[in-house]
Amino acid sequence: MYSFEALAQQFKSKFEVKHFPQEPASLYESCDYFLSIGGKRVRPVMCLMGNELFDNINPDAWHVATAIELFHNFTLLHDDIMDAAPLRRGMQTVHTKYGTNTALLGGDVMLVIAYDYLNKIDRNYLHKVIALFNKTAREVCEGQQLDMDFEKQQTVSLDAYIRMIELKTSVLLAASLQMGAILGGAGEGNRQNIYEFGRNLGIAFQVQDDYLDAFGDPEKFGKDVGGDIRQNKKTFLLLHALEAASTTQRQELLYLMDTNPEDKVQRVLQIFKDCNIDEWAKKLKQSYTDKAMQHLDSIAVVSSRKMPLVELADYLLQRES
Amino acid sequence: MYSFEALAQQFKSKFEVKHFPQEPASLYESCDYFLSIGGKRVRPVMCLMGNELFDNINPDAWHVATAIELFHNFTLLHDDIMDAAPLRRGMQTVHTKYGTNTALLGGDVMLVIAYDYLNKIDRNYLHKVIALFNKTAREVCEGQQLDMDFEKQQTVSLDAYIRMIELKTSVLLAASLQMGAILGGAGEGNRQNIYEFGRNLGIAFQVQDDYLDAFGDPEKFGKDVGGDIRQNKKTFLLLHALEAASTTQRQELLYLMDTNPEDKVQRVLQIFKDCNIDEWAKKLKQSYTDKAMQHLDSIAVVSSRKMPLVELADYLLQRES
Repeated sequence: MYSFEALAQQFKSKFEVKHFPQEPASLYESCDYFLSIGGKRVRPVMCLMGNELFDNINPDAWHVATAIELFHNFTLLHDDIMDAAPLRRGMQTVHTKYGTNTALLGGDVMLVIAYDYLNKIDRNYLHKVIALFNKTAREVCEGQQLDMDFEKQQTVSLDAYIRMIELKTSVLLAASLQMGAILGGAGEGNRQNIYEFGRNLGIAFQVQDDYLDAFGDPEKFGKDVGGDIRQNKKTFLLLHALEAASTTQRQELLYLMDTNPEDKVQRVLQIFKDCNIDEWAKKLKQSYTDKAMQHLDSIAVVSSRKMPLVELADYLLQRES
Repeated sequence: MYSFEALAQQFKSKFEVKHFPQEPASLYESCDYFLSIGGKRVRPVMCLMGNELFDNINPDAWHVATAIELFHNFTLLHDDIMDAAPLRRGMQTVHTKYGTNTALLGGDVMLVIAYDYLNKIDRNYLHKVIALFNKTAREVCEGQQLDMDFEKQQTVSLDAYIRMIELKTSVLLAASLQMGAILGGAGEGNRQNIYEFGRNLGIAFQVQDDYLDAFGDPEKFGKDVGGDIRQNKKTFLLLHALEAASTTQRQELLYLMDTNPEDKVQRVLQIFKDCNIDEWAKKLKQSYTDKAMQHLDSIAVVSSRKMPLVELADYLLQRES
């Protein structure tokens, strides 16, 4: 059994090959460039881990892992266009560097080549893996559309937000694990449990991400703390605060979002604290974490095989183990 | 055996079902809308004809035909964004009606759903059909990129232009026929020949399209004759004229393209005629048509089965038969 780090290292070195043709360079350079920006490659490694949970790694799992990473990059590339983002991981986005049309087309062809990797696997698994891949791809697009819709809406219910997060980010984590499990010969119950482990883990991770953006230690968190608040980004915290606040507090929140005063972050944080949003978020994260771990427990394999996934959850969710 | 028209009618009625989920309507309405704009559905019908050439229609051919038509619409939807086209078939384009972001995402999800239809076919054919579909999809993206590149270039060789046309439009016609042939159990040689029939037919059709835009009878052609000339569009005619013209003629052509005088169309047409571009284009179309028909002849099935394809070629290429 390999740890997340060991598999990540193996995947990264296998992934460092040419995935695209040479010509036309005006198209494929943009794809090569985007992949060179790098990433933690969490999703493909989850596919490998989901596979190894049930058996020695099936060589086909590497193809599916590659397809998943290409798909994920396709979504990021197109999301960057939609968000008009100038930078990703400190590097120019593709549409900034190569123009929007090439970025659009580069994303399209990256998705097609993801399917080329899927098409390499044994035909006994092909229908099942493609069906799950397609369902997930569709849901990720739906999540992105909901995210854009919510940006334009004055109010969004917490339930609707959770559903959006689930579609936009959690289902791909869940499906990555499940595709690996399919290739490992897992039965229906185990496949369901590993999916639910990933789905709940993903939501817990997003709750944590929103929490850290507001309450994280700036030195440890690395990102610009309070960025979400400054941008009026709809987060778990803000949406629950708008639901839980008193009329006066809600009015002040809306006023701060509207007027963007200098001390906005500080004042919003104060309201969050007065409403116990920080405690609420910790509990919410815990409840999704618990659900994830229960589903992992329920998988019918010896617990020693589950250790890498437990460690991954600990790492992603900063749990003390 | 069915004629093109009979199959087109059958396909249109089968294609008139809901291909997309209901929710989120903000995403899928754009997809439904785009399909409602309609079209001649040439490519899916070519898949059905390529199938029926070898055997009774395989039920899977309907799934592949649907996937092809969805793929084609995905490319049109994204091309419209790249070309900033306000209208298609007299209707608002998706990005004009729903915004660029939704159009981008609507195209993405349409491609994913195309793969869902592919995934319905028998697993004995799945690898082969997806491989061809992917190769073709990649090539269509490459063709679109080359088309955009050429627009920015001062000069483009005729050979490079033919290659672009081949990628952007011909390979999908060829692959549609070949996917049908695969599902009909055709052997390697027959599969190659039907592909080459489609590829050459596609180029001949594009030569004709360029010819008619310049020399067509306005009443019969329906489109705005001379539109390509007015827009300095790189066409078979213009690129060959730039190669075949005398120094003086070339200078006048470039001057007309640069200055757009009132009588531009008339004067460019005069140069075309002086250089015998019209006769050259007719011969070029004939030579691709001949190649197409030779490949159709070479297919090892009784010639009576080929009649619908002969009729299709006659119809598309306005041949007197």
